[in-house]
Amino acid sequence: MDRSNHHKANPYLMTRSLIPENQETPIQFIKTDIVDHKLFYRRNHFPYPTLSYSNYYLPINGMVSTPILLSMQDILQFPSKTIPVVLECSGDKRNLFKPKVFGEQWEKGAISQGYWKGVPLRSLLELSGIREGAKEIVVEGYDFGDRTDLNKVFTYARSLPIEKALHPDTIIAYEYNNQPIPFKHGYPLRLIVPQWYAMASVKWIKQIRVISSHFEGPFQSIDYMYYPNKENNKDAFPVTTVNVNSTIQKPLDMEILNTGKHLIKGIAWSGKGFITNLEISVDGGGTWKNAKLEPARRGGYAWQSWSYEWTVSKKGNYMIMSKATDSYGRIQPTVPFWNKKGYGYNAIDKIKVKVE
Amino acid sequence: MDRSNHHKANPYLMTRSLIPENQETPIQFIKTDIVDHKLFYRRNHFPYPTLSYSNYYLPINGMVSTPILLSMQDILQFPSKTIPVVLECSGDKRNLFKPKVFGEQWEKGAISQGYWKGVPLRSLLELSGIREGAKEIVVEGYDFGDRTDLNKVFTYARSLPIEKALHPDTIIAYEYNNQPIPFKHGYPLRLIVPQWYAMASVKWIKQIRVISSHFEGPFQSIDYMYYPNKENNKDAFPVTTVNVNSTIQKPLDMEILNTGKHLIKGIAWSGKGFITNLEISVDGGGTWKNAKLEPARRGGYAWQSWSYEWTVSKKGNYMIMSKATDSYGRIQPTVPFWNKKGYGYNAIDKIKVKVE
Repeated sequence: MDRSNHHKANPYLMTRSLIPENQETPIQFIKTDIVDHKLFYRRNHFPYPTLSYSNYYLPINGMVSTPILLSMQDILQFPSKTIPVVLECSGDKRNLFKPKVFGEQWEKGAISQGYWKGVPLRSLLELSGIREGAKEIVVEGYDFGDRTDLNKVFTYARSLPIEKALHPDTIIAYEYNNQPIPFKHGYPLRLIVPQWYAMASVKWIKQIRVISSHFEGPFQSIDYMYYPNKENNKDAFPVTTVNVNSTIQKPLDMEILNTGKHLIKGIAWSGKGFITNLEISVDGGGTWKNAKLEPARRGGYAWQSWSYEWTVSKKGNYMIMSKATDSYGRIQPTVPFWNKKGYGYNAIDKIKVKVE
Repeated sequence: MDRSNHHKANPYLMTRSLIPENQETPIQFIKTDIVDHKLFYRRNHFPYPTLSYSNYYLPINGMVSTPILLSMQDILQFPSKTIPVVLECSGDKRNLFKPKVFGEQWEKGAISQGYWKGVPLRSLLELSGIREGAKEIVVEGYDFGDRTDLNKVFTYARSLPIEKALHPDTIIAYEYNNQPIPFKHGYPLRLIVPQWYAMASVKWIKQIRVISSHFEGPFQSIDYMYYPNKENNKDAFPVTTVNVNSTIQKPLDMEILNTGKHLIKGIAWSGKGFITNLEISVDGGGTWKNAKLEPARRGGYAWQSWSYEWTVSKKGNYMIMSKATDSYGRIQPTVPFWNKKGYGYNAIDKIKVKVE
C-alpha cells in the first residue's frame, strides 16, 4: 500500500488550565483574518454549564416597563447584524509583565476574531422598555461555581452602563462565522460587546436585568479591575476599553534567520477607532519605519494585518519591535502599565532574532 | 433537543513551529505514565518525507560481512522486545536558559514516553556481520532538506558507537503502544536509543551503514554539540546521555492557590540508572523534604512519577522546587550548564505560586 504522505502540520490551542478550561489561540500561526472556532481561545471562570436548549428562554426583567421572556424563535425574528469583532481577554500577554503577575500565564494568544451575528441588545430593550432611573444592564450567564476567595457560589455576570448597552453594535449573538455559536463559546446566545475586553461578552446568557444601581458582582468589583499598586488596592479602576496594541506573528521570538529578505508580519487592533499607523524597528527602537497596514474594515471592529519587508545583510542579533497608533492618537507605550492582576498589557511588542 | 453537555477539556500539542513541524507535549496536563501518540511531542528537522511502504526495504551495508536487505516481513521474524522508554529532545527546557538561547523555544514538554516494540539492532548486525575495523553505525532517515547554514541538502543521519549500537535495548522499533508507529513518529521503522537524548532515535529509517571512521554529519558535528562558550566553539563536546532531571506538573507556575492541602506532583528521569530520590522545597531551596517516589520499572527506561502533599496555612508567595538524584549519584544542579545551542537543561525545576 502506498500512501500520499501529505502530512499537514496544524497548530492547536495551547492549554493554560483544564479546570476551568483556558486555552490560547496559537496566534503566531494564524494566517487568516477570521479565526476558525476550533482555534478560538477559550476562557472560562467555571466548569462548562448545563442548560436545556429545548426549553431555552431569555428573560429581560428588572427596571423595565414590561418584563419579557423571549424564545429563540422570537429572537430570530428581529433584524440582525453581522459584525467582524476582535475579542481579546484582558489578561492577554499577562505573561509578559515584569515583575511577573500571578494568574493564568497567557502569552500573546488570548485574542481571536470572526463574524458574530445577532440582534442588537437595544432592540430587545426597546421591546421591554427601560424605566426611568435605570442605570445599568446586567447580563448573567449559565456558568457558575465556587469563588474560593469569597467562599460562596457565584454566577458569572457583568453589567454594562446604559449607553454601552444601547450602542447599536452591542449584540445578542447567535452565530459565529455563519454557524450557531459553538457551545464552548456561548451557545445558544452570547453577548458581544465590541471595543471592550472580552470579559464583557458574557456567554450562555441566562437573563438580562435592568437595574437602578451600580452592579457590584465580583467579576467587576474584585476581578477585572486595574490595581496599580503592589501593596494595596488603592486607585483601582475597572477594565473596559481595549488598549491600542499589536503583535508580531512572524518571525518567531528567538528564531534563527539567514541573511536576505524576510517578511515581518503581524496584527494590530484598538478598542477606540482603528489603527492608523504601524511602525517597525529592527534595531531595538533606535529607528522606526512604517509597515504596510491593511485598511480598517468599515463597520467592524477587526484587527488589521500589517507587514514589513526586511532586508538584512549583516549577521548578528536583532530586536524587532512593532508599535501601533490608533485614530484617537493612542500609541503603544514602551513600558506597560503594570497592575497587580495583570490586565490590559499593551507595550510595544518585541522579539529577538539571530541572523547567521 | 437536550444535550448532555459533557464538554470535556482536553490538552493539545503546543506549536513551536509548523515548517518543519515542532510541537510540544502539554506535559503539565499529562496524567498517565504512557503518552498517547496524539500528544507525543513532534520534533522535525525537515518537512515530512515521502516513502513507499509497498516497496520498503531496510539495507544494512558498509563494513559488514554480508550486505543485507530486509523486508518488513523479515524484520517481524526476529525475536522482539517491548520497552518503556522516555524520549527527551535535547532542546527540552531551552526556553529556561538565562541568558536566552536562540532556536526553538521549547518549554518543559519536549519529552514523552510509551512502549516501543522492535528488534534489537544487535540482532540485525549479527545477521550481516560486522567486519574488523568497524567503528560506528550510521542510521539514516528518509527526511532531508536544505541546511541553509551549509547551503547544501542533507539527509538526517546520526551515528552510534559500536558498543551503544550493540546494546540489547537499542532497537529498531515498529510499534508504539501496541500500534504501528504513527507516521509522524517514524513509521515504518524508527531507531530507539534508550538513555540518549532523542536526536539519536532516527525516524523513518532508510539505511544502516557500518563505518570505520567517526561520522561527521552536521547533526552531530554542528548541531547536538554542547558549546560552553558564548564567543567561540572551543571545548565543544557531543550531546549523548540524558541528564538527571525532573519537572513539576502541578501546581502550575504562577498559579493562585488557597490555604490548605495541595498535591505537588511531577516526573523525574535520568539517562543513567534510575531516580533514587526526589526532594521538594517549598521555601525556594531553604529546606528540602523527600517526595513520594514511584519505583523504577524493571527493564525499562521510563520516567518515575512523584508526589508530595503540601499543607500550607500561611498566605503569601512561595517558590516550589524539585530536585532529582539518580542511582549514579547525579543530582540536578542549581544553575544549568549554559551552552550556546541550549541543550541538556536540567537545573532544579522551580515554579512560583501565590497562596491567598
